[in-house]
Amino acid sequence: MSGKRVFFFGDGQADGHAGMRNLLGGKGANLAEMITLGIPVPPGFTVTTEECIAYQQTNALSDELKADVKEVLAKVEKAMDKKFADANDPLLFSVRSGARVSMPGMMDTVLNLGLNDETVQGLANKSGNARFAFDSYRRLVQMYGDVVMGVDGHTLEHAIDEIKAARGVKLDTELSADDLKELIATFKSIIKDETGQDFPTDPFEQLWGGISAVFKSWHVKRAYEYRAINRIPHDWGTAVNVQAMVFGNMGENSATGVAFTRDPSNGERRFYGEFLIDAQGEDVVAGTRTPQQLNVAGRDLLPAGNEAKTLPTLDEAMPEPYKALDKIRGDLENHYKDIQDIEFTIQDGRLWMLQTRSGKRTGVAAIRIAAEMEAEGLVTMEEALLLVEPDHLDQLLHDQIDPDAETTEMGVGLPASPGAAQGEIVFSAEDAVAAHADGKKVVLVRRETSPEDIAGMHVAEGILTSRGGMTSHAAVVARGMGKPCVAGCSDLVVDTKTGKMEIGGKTYTAGDMLTINGTTGAVIDGAPALVPPHMDDPNLAKVMGWADETRRLKVRTNADTPHDAKQAREFGAQGIGLCRTEHMFFGEDRILKMREMILAENLEAREVALAKIKPMQQDDFEGIFRAMDGLEVTVRLLDPPLHEFLPHETADMKVLADEMGVELKTIELKVESLHEMNPMLGHRGCRLGLIYPEIYDTQVEAIIAAAIVVKKEGVDVRPEIMIPLVGTRRELGDLRTRTIMVAERVMAEADYKVDYLVGTMIEIPRAALLADEMAQEADFFSFGTNDLTQMTFGYSRDDTNGFLPEYVRRGILTNDPFQQLDQSGVGQLVEMAAVKGRKGNPKIHLGICGEHGGDPSSVAFCHKVGLDYVSCSPFRVPIARLAAAQVMVREKLEAGK
Amino acid sequence: MSGKRVFFFGDGQADGHAGMRNLLGGKGANLAEMITLGIPVPPGFTVTTEECIAYQQTNALSDELKADVKEVLAKVEKAMDKKFADANDPLLFSVRSGARVSMPGMMDTVLNLGLNDETVQGLANKSGNARFAFDSYRRLVQMYGDVVMGVDGHTLEHAIDEIKAARGVKLDTELSADDLKELIATFKSIIKDETGQDFPTDPFEQLWGGISAVFKSWHVKRAYEYRAINRIPHDWGTAVNVQAMVFGNMGENSATGVAFTRDPSNGERRFYGEFLIDAQGEDVVAGTRTPQQLNVAGRDLLPAGNEAKTLPTLDEAMPEPYKALDKIRGDLENHYKDIQDIEFTIQDGRLWMLQTRSGKRTGVAAIRIAAEMEAEGLVTMEEALLLVEPDHLDQLLHDQIDPDAETTEMGVGLPASPGAAQGEIVFSAEDAVAAHADGKKVVLVRRETSPEDIAGMHVAEGILTSRGGMTSHAAVVARGMGKPCVAGCSDLVVDTKTGKMEIGGKTYTAGDMLTINGTTGAVIDGAPALVPPHMDDPNLAKVMGWADETRRLKVRTNADTPHDAKQAREFGAQGIGLCRTEHMFFGEDRILKMREMILAENLEAREVALAKIKPMQQDDFEGIFRAMDGLEVTVRLLDPPLHEFLPHETADMKVLADEMGVELKTIELKVESLHEMNPMLGHRGCRLGLIYPEIYDTQVEAIIAAAIVVKKEGVDVRPEIMIPLVGTRRELGDLRTRTIMVAERVMAEADYKVDYLVGTMIEIPRAALLADEMAQEADFFSFGTNDLTQMTFGYSRDDTNGFLPEYVRRGILTNDPFQQLDQSGVGQLVEMAAVKGRKGNPKIHLGICGEHGGDPSSVAFCHKVGLDYVSCSPFRVPIARLAAAQVMVREKLEAGK
Repeated sequence: MSGKRVFFFGDGQADGHAGMRNLLGGKGANLAEMITLGIPVPPGFTVTTEECIAYQQTNALSDELKADVKEVLAKVEKAMDKKFADANDPLLFSVRSGARVSMPGMMDTVLNLGLNDETVQGLANKSGNARFAFDSYRRLVQMYGDVVMGVDGHTLEHAIDEIKAARGVKLDTELSADDLKELIATFKSIIKDETGQDFPTDPFEQLWGGISAVFKSWHVKRAYEYRAINRIPHDWGTAVNVQAMVFGNMGENSATGVAFTRDPSNGERRFYGEFLIDAQGEDVVAGTRTPQQLNVAGRDLLPAGNEAKTLPTLDEAMPEPYKALDKIRGDLENHYKDIQDIEFTIQDGRLWMLQTRSGKRTGVAAIRIAAEMEAEGLVTMEEALLLVEPDHLDQLLHDQIDPDAETTEMGVGLPASPGAAQGEIVFSAEDAVAAHADGKKVVLVRRETSPEDIAGMHVAEGILTSRGGMTSHAAVVARGMGKPCVAGCSDLVVDTKTGKMEIGGKTYTAGDMLTINGTTGAVIDGAPALVPPHMDDPNLAKVMGWADETRRLKVRTNADTPHDAKQAREFGAQGIGLCRTEHMFFGEDRILKMREMILAENLEAREVALAKIKPMQQDDFEGIFRAMDGLEVTVRLLDPPLHEFLPHETADMKVLADEMGVELKTIELKVESLHEMNPMLGHRGCRLGLIYPEIYDTQVEAIIAAAIVVKKEGVDVRPEIMIPLVGTRRELGDLRTRTIMVAERVMAEADYKVDYLVGTMIEIPRAALLADEMAQEADFFSFGTNDLTQMTFGYSRDDTNGFLPEYVRRGILTNDPFQQLDQSGVGQLVEMAAVKGRKGNPKIHLGICGEHGGDPSSVAFCHKVGLDYVSCSPFRVPIARLAAAQVMVREKLEAGK
Repeated sequence: MSGKRVFFFGDGQADGHAGMRNLLGGKGANLAEMITLGIPVPPGFTVTTEECIAYQQTNALSDELKADVKEVLAKVEKAMDKKFADANDPLLFSVRSGARVSMPGMMDTVLNLGLNDETVQGLANKSGNARFAFDSYRRLVQMYGDVVMGVDGHTLEHAIDEIKAARGVKLDTELSADDLKELIATFKSIIKDETGQDFPTDPFEQLWGGISAVFKSWHVKRAYEYRAINRIPHDWGTAVNVQAMVFGNMGENSATGVAFTRDPSNGERRFYGEFLIDAQGEDVVAGTRTPQQLNVAGRDLLPAGNEAKTLPTLDEAMPEPYKALDKIRGDLENHYKDIQDIEFTIQDGRLWMLQTRSGKRTGVAAIRIAAEMEAEGLVTMEEALLLVEPDHLDQLLHDQIDPDAETTEMGVGLPASPGAAQGEIVFSAEDAVAAHADGKKVVLVRRETSPEDIAGMHVAEGILTSRGGMTSHAAVVARGMGKPCVAGCSDLVVDTKTGKMEIGGKTYTAGDMLTINGTTGAVIDGAPALVPPHMDDPNLAKVMGWADETRRLKVRTNADTPHDAKQAREFGAQGIGLCRTEHMFFGEDRILKMREMILAENLEAREVALAKIKPMQQDDFEGIFRAMDGLEVTVRLLDPPLHEFLPHETADMKVLADEMGVELKTIELKVESLHEMNPMLGHRGCRLGLIYPEIYDTQVEAIIAAAIVVKKEGVDVRPEIMIPLVGTRRELGDLRTRTIMVAERVMAEADYKVDYLVGTMIEIPRAALLADEMAQEADFFSFGTNDLTQMTFGYSRDDTNGFLPEYVRRGILTNDPFQQLDQSGVGQLVEMAAVKGRKGNPKIHLGICGEHGGDPSSVAFCHKVGLDYVSCSPFRVPIARLAAAQVMVREKLEAGK
């Protein structure tokens, strides 16, 4: 604990600064920073994240904290020249969460704290706007009842619908001050009925309740889920920002809005944003009203028919505040050297900044911003590299709709997150999760999304909404997830109750196919062909060029076919780190021959079957070697247990029996005899290679023969033969000796030489523990972190459903260790093996070929422990290249500190 | 390489000594030692084990080695005053193997090297015994053809049978010199026919062939198997002893025999042995002739009807050589301070010693010899402790026939290895292995056994032979294995061809039940009741007392029932290191309630089912706590995956469905839903405890409630609650917190306190790697080396049949790591976790509860890495106690060096 519980900001002075993000949260740190920069920010204070952690133990605010808050509150009163709980001219507060990293929409907010039956009159008198005062009070009672006291939000919404129906009006704004008074009374009685407690009239009681509610919200389920998906530790906690209220809803001379210093969708350097006149902040974000554009330039870019095209812009409606905002935009970018996502309120013509933070952006935008900011001289090349998140590159690699495909465009919305997505329509997050579990691809269609929909969005191919702007929940979250999204499609009518939607004159029901183009905003009928993305963005080439100049770690790919190999090479792969030979056997024409081999009664029969398999393998290898001309190709010898290749249904067994001319019973018995209790720990990998050496012999023959063929064609071929699943030195030594013997024989028969290496996968904990011995039998180690994770944790990847999601939810595990390398446990073995391996064989090459090879934090770890390369799936190659560069830059920055 | 390839011994001088066992083998080192002690040993030389290893690479004897042999051979010629290959009076040689430890009957031997058509005449002339000379030559050609040239031994034996039939004689000795000449010619032509090569007439060629054959024999299958069973490393190699021939078959004044300086069966201090007049050494060992007793005292002890009772003893037949032998017996015991197993030959009245080595003995004998040698002042208490092998104690714990059982004794043989054994009769090693694989218990019945039978003997309950003495192959090997054996039962007629045996007038066929009593030699009809052994041997008490005084390591037991707990306590267990609660649920009355709990639809239903289980568990714990009054009892909370408790047959599912009043389909679906691909790595252990906390809660309640009950009775109760399968600190921390909460609640409700500890099993590699963190949440660690071995090697214990036996056979693994702790891999994790654990929590208790806890070498390892205790099955407790003492003594001896 740092000791200081509450940090003041206001009057041009702040206790904190931008560097105190861990203690004050991102929002609190930046509010303090903005104050120091001379930017107009409503005064307030931040309660630290440490207090949040402390709260989780006691479930109560300490007396010390309350005393500190009261002390700082006096400073705010001085800065605003108003008093909290003053019946004549009350100072009101907003209470907002603010974690170390932004968690949009995840945490609860309460506005207008300080209002009660007395002070509301003071506000009405002072503002001269009774309707505004009672609407503010109505919002407080509604939010407080929902968020702090736990009343069902829908019950309260229903009360609003009822009074609107009774008055015969459609909009909230059509309700009068008296209507609102009646509504407040209704809310209070609902609260009393549902909770047995009165809405608190003491402003301080409201304040403590609000702070407590933010702390409690850290542990609600949707926050858990957001953190789990976004890999945010559960023990960070959130800070609370208590800030003097300013009002964007004090009439036609007031407004509230959100803006980005550049276009977050494509990265263009233009001031981009949306606002609403006479509104509070949540009205913009919630997407219930269509927001207006910040400036004329932005409005001109809207697609035809968009409602906002007919509405005035901020520079038209309020030119002075707009000018002030535009200046602040430049100041913030110069200060933070990154695109900023800002919130502002104009109260009665005066501009207030409520927030600034690093702006979430699409992959395309991230790349463009990095490239242009470097060109502008705003950032160095190395700083520019850190402006792109590795996962953002994923978006550049998303599918696009085939330009040659015939498409029927049914309507158009906002291009909220790029890429094309298609799937069956679902109308709820639950349906999305269920259909996904059945292996279906889905597009989630909603009027608007809310944090409750997170799980459904996560499994959907893409998201389509009928309401909301580019900063709506759906748009922000989809961009964060790198998923295609079309938002605010006003052509679309969604009826979730009947499970139907209408667009372009056609009615769709759940299960119908739909395609969206998040790059253009188009909604397309059916499922036209998609094409893989092209990486031809010149900004991307520039940034990736910097990454390649910067990084030390090489990036290879996992590829089993010439096609994948070619694609990965286009993505920048510097070789193949893992070519799984077994995948070559699952083709329909091949599986039968593989089965013949497995079911062979004796060595001779097995050799006959293997002789049929060999030319197929050799053909595959030739294709891969050609595609990887000049680069290393690591081929793993057969790894899975043999029974994986065998049929398990009687009908399939019968086919095989007929084909082989044996009794069905024979097949059944063999399948039965190969059954294993725990196949993951069974007879596979090098254990097969040692017991049935003819299998590996055949594979080695195919590899070397292929290498000879392509080398004669002039290809620079560099095969590396990898022996899987070794746990003892003798396994590796015996198989290495035999591999070399077979390779030398093939070369002698061909009277032709190729260079090759023989190494192993380190995936058994024992091999890591004894890596010094192992290294003496290996030219290279490739860490198979999938299996290493399974065995180090004792988890079967196939059987973790019963507990792993719950472990992550509860924070027993910070992450799913199959997605992100467990650095303290599995990583300890990797590091130990790297050190011991180099000790045993100073010339050894070290790499990683588990799925972690494409995870940025794992790539950084591999760099730090001194591996030579990572290998990952083709689409993750650019991500790994960038991650490898970023860790170098960060190391340099650390060293410079 | 030490450089020196060949070591001479003879003429009272030797290049080597007893300390050079690794280089010269046990036999070679002891021959050198005996020479130095002034004991008459035929001169010769030893080729080192290093040459054997070198031979495995090249498959040829080096020129340097041949030159060295020729040089030393000249010294032997001088000592014997004869020349090798001398046509008039040839010096002949034996060639024998001699590994670092004795491998009886495993390695090949060739005698009478140096004879050919020329030199045999010289031998005939010089000895004046043409028949002897040609018989010697016949033996050479036969052995050489078989052992060196690879001719089928049976073909040669068949030729002998044919000539005997042709001459109308029954015994080999009835064949004349001319018959033998004819036989030699026949042998040579068989050799030529079968191998295409002539029997070599050049004595040097014979010598090189003989040495090579010994080296080659190191890698034959039966030698591999013997080493695998006896855990002898495959890379030790064997030395070759080449020694001037002396002949026990030069007539009635010659003899050959084997003897023990004490009785190897019961340890009595009497000179015990067997010999044959006019015979060569292998005649005694092979058991083809019934040997005579060494002295009258020995003969008097033979059972009535034994053929040897009618034959003269050595002290009767040759009193002078006997006297010389008896003196050597004393000299050797005084020198080696252990019982010696010696081989001697009397050639024409002159005594020659051919070998001395530490004598294999029964467990009873080992205990008695240790106790008596200490009492005699021959050894110190600590030396005495090293005279007993831990595995020997196993024999003392073998079953005995219930004294009250009605038994029908069908015949009696020699009591070759103690204990009673019963099972189905099998007549071949293959049948034994097959029946064992089917889960049957078998008694292996053979006329005599040979090294080819090793695998069958290993799986048999006991061994019965109709031929051979106490030093026959069957007897020696069975004692080594600690298996009951009745040897040389002359009442028995075995016909392996028809698969029948006759004894006591009854005919048995394969599959009939038979019982043998290896302590008395009795062969008993059927399967009378057996009783567990009593540990009431006063020598045992003495030795175990010394062990307990000496050791630092405590020994606990793994016991799940009050009965096992009591028995283990009688065996000296100092607590329970592992009480598996799940074993308590497999009883017929309980499994149903367990199933109800698992199939409960929700928490409430599960709690109802658990409430039924709780009193049963509490009752078990009370019984165990009472049995372990004053000692620690570590109870492991539920560990296996839930589906292990569920029925898998439809009929059983139906019973359960009826009992629970649900549809069969419901049960089927639940069983299906709990199915796992790799249950070993699935949802079990603490993963269950975290997802279904009510299960562990109930168990903790039962433990604490039981402890309260028995403590009120005055029992000193010391429960330790163990949380299994943890891999992360949070798992352990969360469950520890909950365990303490439940325990405190139970005690508060009872208003009564008991002390208890909460700790964990270290069985997941990650837990070992992060033991410093883990230790902060644990009062104790117990290493679960079974699972730790599975995960460190990536082996499923259930699925290793496909490769593990072959791995051990080929030496890829020195041992089965589930039997003997893999010290370099798994042990590395244990040691790391012990060090880190103590760092994280200096007060932590450390133990091991895997099956390795009863393996002597693993016990020694646990001592060395500083564990506090080992825990093993009740019958292994005495073994662990002794092993723990021996490692202390050895450490002391090492330190004193």
